[in-house]
Amino acid sequence: MVFIMIKVGIIGGTGYTGAELLRLLAVHPGVDLKVITSRSEAGRQVSELFPGLHGQIDLAFMEPGHKTLSDCDVVFTATPNGVAMQHARALLDGGAKLIDLAADFRLKDEKVWEQWYGMPHACPELLAEAVYGLPEVNRDKIRKARLIANPGCYPTAVQLGFLPLLEEGLVDPAQLIADAKSGVSGAGRGARVETLFSEASDNFKAYGVPGHRHWPEICQGLAEATGESVGLTFVPHLAPMIRGIHATLYARLTKQDADLQALFEKRYAKEPFVDVLPAGSHPETRSVRGANVCRLALHRPHGGDTVVVLSVIDNLVKGAAGQAIQNMNLLFGLDERVGLGHPALWP
Amino acid sequence: MVFIMIKVGIIGGTGYTGAELLRLLAVHPGVDLKVITSRSEAGRQVSELFPGLHGQIDLAFMEPGHKTLSDCDVVFTATPNGVAMQHARALLDGGAKLIDLAADFRLKDEKVWEQWYGMPHACPELLAEAVYGLPEVNRDKIRKARLIANPGCYPTAVQLGFLPLLEEGLVDPAQLIADAKSGVSGAGRGARVETLFSEASDNFKAYGVPGHRHWPEICQGLAEATGESVGLTFVPHLAPMIRGIHATLYARLTKQDADLQALFEKRYAKEPFVDVLPAGSHPETRSVRGANVCRLALHRPHGGDTVVVLSVIDNLVKGAAGQAIQNMNLLFGLDERVGLGHPALWP
Amino acid sequence: MVFIMIKVGIIGGTGYTGAELLRLLAVHPGVDLKVITSRSEAGRQVSELFPGLHGQIDLAFMEPGHKTLSDCDVVFTATPNGVAMQHARALLDGGAKLIDLAADFRLKDEKVWEQWYGMPHACPELLAEAVYGLPEVNRDKIRKARLIANPGCYPTAVQLGFLPLLEEGLVDPAQLIADAKSGVSGAGRGARVETLFSEASDNFKAYGVPGHRHWPEICQGLAEATGESVGLTFVPHLAPMIRGIHATLYARLTKQDADLQALFEKRYAKEPFVDVLPAGSHPETRSVRGANVCRLALHRPHGGDTVVVLSVIDNLVKGAAGQAIQNMNLLFGLDERVGLGHPALWP
Amino acid sequence: MVFIMIKVGIIGGTGYTGAELLRLLAVHPGVDLKVITSRSEAGRQVSELFPGLHGQIDLAFMEPGHKTLSDCDVVFTATPNGVAMQHARALLDGGAKLIDLAADFRLKDEKVWEQWYGMPHACPELLAEAVYGLPEVNRDKIRKARLIANPGCYPTAVQLGFLPLLEEGLVDPAQLIADAKSGVSGAGRGARVETLFSEASDNFKAYGVPGHRHWPEICQGLAEATGESVGLTFVPHLAPMIRGIHATLYARLTKQDADLQALFEKRYAKEPFVDVLPAGSHPETRSVRGANVCRLALHRPHGGDTVVVLSVIDNLVKGAAGQAIQNMNLLFGLDERVGLGHPALWP
Repeated sequence: MVFIMIKVGIIGGTGYTGAELLRLLAVHPGVDLKVITSRSEAGRQVSELFPGLHGQIDLAFMEPGHKTLSDCDVVFTATPNGVAMQHARALLDGGAKLIDLAADFRLKDEKVWEQWYGMPHACPELLAEAVYGLPEVNRDKIRKARLIANPGCYPTAVQLGFLPLLEEGLVDPAQLIADAKSGVSGAGRGARVETLFSEASDNFKAYGVPGHRHWPEICQGLAEATGESVGLTFVPHLAPMIRGIHATLYARLTKQDADLQALFEKRYAKEPFVDVLPAGSHPETRSVRGANVCRLALHRPHGGDTVVVLSVIDNLVKGAAGQAIQNMNLLFGLDERVGLGHPALWP
Repeated sequence: MVFIMIKVGIIGGTGYTGAELLRLLAVHPGVDLKVITSRSEAGRQVSELFPGLHGQIDLAFMEPGHKTLSDCDVVFTATPNGVAMQHARALLDGGAKLIDLAADFRLKDEKVWEQWYGMPHACPELLAEAVYGLPEVNRDKIRKARLIANPGCYPTAVQLGFLPLLEEGLVDPAQLIADAKSGVSGAGRGARVETLFSEASDNFKAYGVPGHRHWPEICQGLAEATGESVGLTFVPHLAPMIRGIHATLYARLTKQDADLQALFEKRYAKEPFVDVLPAGSHPETRSVRGANVCRLALHRPHGGDTVVVLSVIDNLVKGAAGQAIQNMNLLFGLDERVGLGHPALWP
Repeated sequence: MVFIMIKVGIIGGTGYTGAELLRLLAVHPGVDLKVITSRSEAGRQVSELFPGLHGQIDLAFMEPGHKTLSDCDVVFTATPNGVAMQHARALLDGGAKLIDLAADFRLKDEKVWEQWYGMPHACPELLAEAVYGLPEVNRDKIRKARLIANPGCYPTAVQLGFLPLLEEGLVDPAQLIADAKSGVSGAGRGARVETLFSEASDNFKAYGVPGHRHWPEICQGLAEATGESVGLTFVPHLAPMIRGIHATLYARLTKQDADLQALFEKRYAKEPFVDVLPAGSHPETRSVRGANVCRLALHRPHGGDTVVVLSVIDNLVKGAAGQAIQNMNLLFGLDERVGLGHPALWP
Repeated sequence: MVFIMIKVGIIGGTGYTGAELLRLLAVHPGVDLKVITSRSEAGRQVSELFPGLHGQIDLAFMEPGHKTLSDCDVVFTATPNGVAMQHARALLDGGAKLIDLAADFRLKDEKVWEQWYGMPHACPELLAEAVYGLPEVNRDKIRKARLIANPGCYPTAVQLGFLPLLEEGLVDPAQLIADAKSGVSGAGRGARVETLFSEASDNFKAYGVPGHRHWPEICQGLAEATGESVGLTFVPHLAPMIRGIHATLYARLTKQDADLQALFEKRYAKEPFVDVLPAGSHPETRSVRGANVCRLALHRPHGGDTVVVLSVIDNLVKGAAGQAIQNMNLLFGLDERVGLGHPALWP
């Protein structure tokens, strides 16, 4: 049972992660959604922009501004990179907790952050305090945090797939490959030619092969797990579907006789949102569509020394808004699963 | 608050309406899912067939057979046409209520039924007792029923759009046109060439123009509303999307000065699952994806005497499983909205 | 055999109709593509913007400007509405013929044009001279024209479906309904939120029900065919596919005993690009994908007095670039079919 | 100019590769299509099954049988695996050439073939004679062949991407990874639940990770190129698009200073159907939709020792019917490009 009502604010609720927060929070029994801001849509009813929420959320977008936000217990920032760091200090000082769905607090190294995000960091002193919000790694730290850096979508799928292998030292950390495929919603709700229906439909392509911002984030997480730096080749692709990430992970085994299936099952036995499928399975992205779940399967083709891990999530749920709510539940002492228990939308 | 636990059985849970029942019942707080049968999948775990339900439903398909089913308070039949009528008498005699998601009890006239469904009816004596499960028309009868004929998907979208006009006698009932478009899941989960991805994707076509089984069902419902027989041209189309029905309805006004918007808003003011959009709106099927809602909008182009009603539903929810659960809630005295409150999956 | 080489220019080749012109002209044996202009892409290789043309077209976009263009025998304008009329006078005076794929010269009535397109017309004196480029109606006039107004996509599909009925006076011209569905490429290549993949995929909606610019164009054409003004309700929809228009047309028969199938077959017997399917057919948009064909089928459901015509085209081919090339062939005395003979891409 | 007319027969023209042969042969200027057989569709007009060919091909399916077929100069078998080998001896003895689009003659080792295809081979003595129809490797042998084993779709995309690296000995042949994504048409036109629109749309999954029949075929080809056996991990995936293969290839460089871009450009400089894109490119499957082209791009992320090759083809064209026609052109001394010159369908 839920005994508390968390006062929640959202900064920047007009993109897909913001819309997904709204969809999930609308039926979260422990949440009182107080305020949602948007510079471009201020004054407009939320349900006018998102007709699917007609009858669900009776709130208008407000101008950004800290007053109402600081009355919140927790604020989600679902903004472009570089916005949350402008608000963080004031919100924290005002007593709110902050969960940033963008990348402002994901990298520990200020220099690396600035290199990949192309701007100076507004509050580098908070980088050390920020907790990387992957509950399967940092659950205890999350409970006590003020500032959560919600992980990226690719990093969630890739890390959950590689972690057990690296934590146990079973694979060569210098030769990791992550071939990842994302639905188009991962590119956001901004109007760009390359994500138009007529461009992205019935099409498949890689992008960002020379370098992608999620690469240093994944490397940082995997290095923590293995205790040394890792060599990772990361190739993201755009698949013609709305939601979903499918990461196909390749690593070279250094110990041949480990029972990988048992290892994964044990590692995630108590995780409510990681589902290790039976050996030989091929998880589908639609099996997590709309759900806060990562499904994993393991293969070792032809009995060779390459292990293949298949990892699927919904980029907007376990890869963004759902994980953010999971983090909120932890922050406020709720059962981690509250508001996140519905199955995937299938078919 | 829900104080009862309804013992539920499902006959034939391997198609899309069965899967959708499972998805919705898995999180319905007043339901204890006791048994699900399938001849073809007997013995197999539900979550093996539908991996999206892994961790949600811990039940195996059973052989069809009345024993366990008769212990249920209510049984849903999500079978091909002609199966429910084989089970109906025994289930009702055993004390269970029956909600048929197929067409066995939708038509009142046995002869018409046999003409359209091409087989003799197994229990024509139940046709009179069966209540057509469109709560917006038959709510009180549904509460007291034993046997519910859950409406077809097209009939739900078309009737909800035409009803206010016909009930008030504002249009010529002899000249109705329903141009309806359905997602491919409406064709079922059977393996057929024409619904293969490579056939149905990036494609649009009409089908069944000479005659479709939903035509007599719609005509029957509209005739009841207007008190006379109707002339309806019904053209269904297959659209390259998984879920959704968009019915574009045309009627000729016989009274020019009625305030149609006010009429619709009043007619559906107390309906929890019918949403009349502001004048000038264009409802999208995705605004009801996964949700038990019908959204309607009205137009009168160029001020002429043709009224255009746009009506969207999710064919598997308000057009099938969701409406069936709405009927179950009514049958057992629950708040009609229990288990059906989640917003659409968007985007 | 082709004995001439037509010098061709394209103004504005960066949108979908421009790209489609390039695709078709690249393999047209009678065409020498001399120049293609684009303000935004000037200097860039065509194949850099459209990688599918790598190895097919070795030409760079040029700044707009009449010099090179006036050396052309024919210029296609594949620009937004309102651009072609700025160039028309100079091009015609310079001796080139002009085929406008936009709407600048489609309406005969200057006032109506200005009302629907929201700007003053730059050369209203050319409206009378311009020939509406629907070869099935105006073939002889097209052969002698200097200025062709290439029809809109919806108007092509709708007119070809209604024309035989109206020409023969078999239906009530005051009660026509055109329920039309278009692929998303019809909305153009401009970056807009509502045509993003994540918005338009797995979705269906009507749009522009209160009024659409193709409505007066269709009305003008149908009125010419029938000799009196028509009453048309036109509802366009956006379907989740790249290409294709499916028009479902409804009319009320005033003569009950006409052999409609024979009428259509006779009307289009000599048309190379109109294919009347056998009675009872349901044409699919994919059967014309990439091809310059309109396929038609006729139905009279339940033997009533409503005739249903199904009409499909590829909006970018018979609805735009293909028809423009068909017009070019006519203008220069070529066999109408040159360069347009390939079958649809299927599946 | 084409001076000959090749008499062509097709065995099994009702699947997607057969349909694609028909689409391409319908406009091939050197082909006289004499006969097409199908057991299931015998007697039916081709254009009835494939309405997109209405007006293009005036031929009915015939019962299988060698009489008419043996009058052909060349016969294409577009049948399930195991059928072509039943016909091969009789056709060759009758003087026809045979191009098998299935897998019957792709593997040189009879034992390996039988292991992967699960049946005894009907004419193992022809395996040695059969030429593997990848013109970029075997052009001269193809010209003189009687029996062509047309390569699989994945093997075409993967081999063309790896070949230059292996031929020059620049990468470790023991550590190759091919992560390949295919459109759904690759699964054929057979009615199966898992390739239904409602199952395959808006979804992404790997399949066949433990073993896929294209794995030994690829290994055989790569081993020939490098002169030693190779270690290949091959993971195929199903992407929600009709056509297209995107192979993402990973190899570990053993020589660090090679100019890979120059190497690829040189290797394929004279190839009419292999297009090496500028360094840094990301080829899209739609850039080859309907076209007989393989587009390649090279990357070396972060300057490391992993080279990434991106390779795209249309699985039904360069991956099947187009390559078969390219082989036919070679067999009969035509310009390799005849009938294959059209650009991709874009968008």
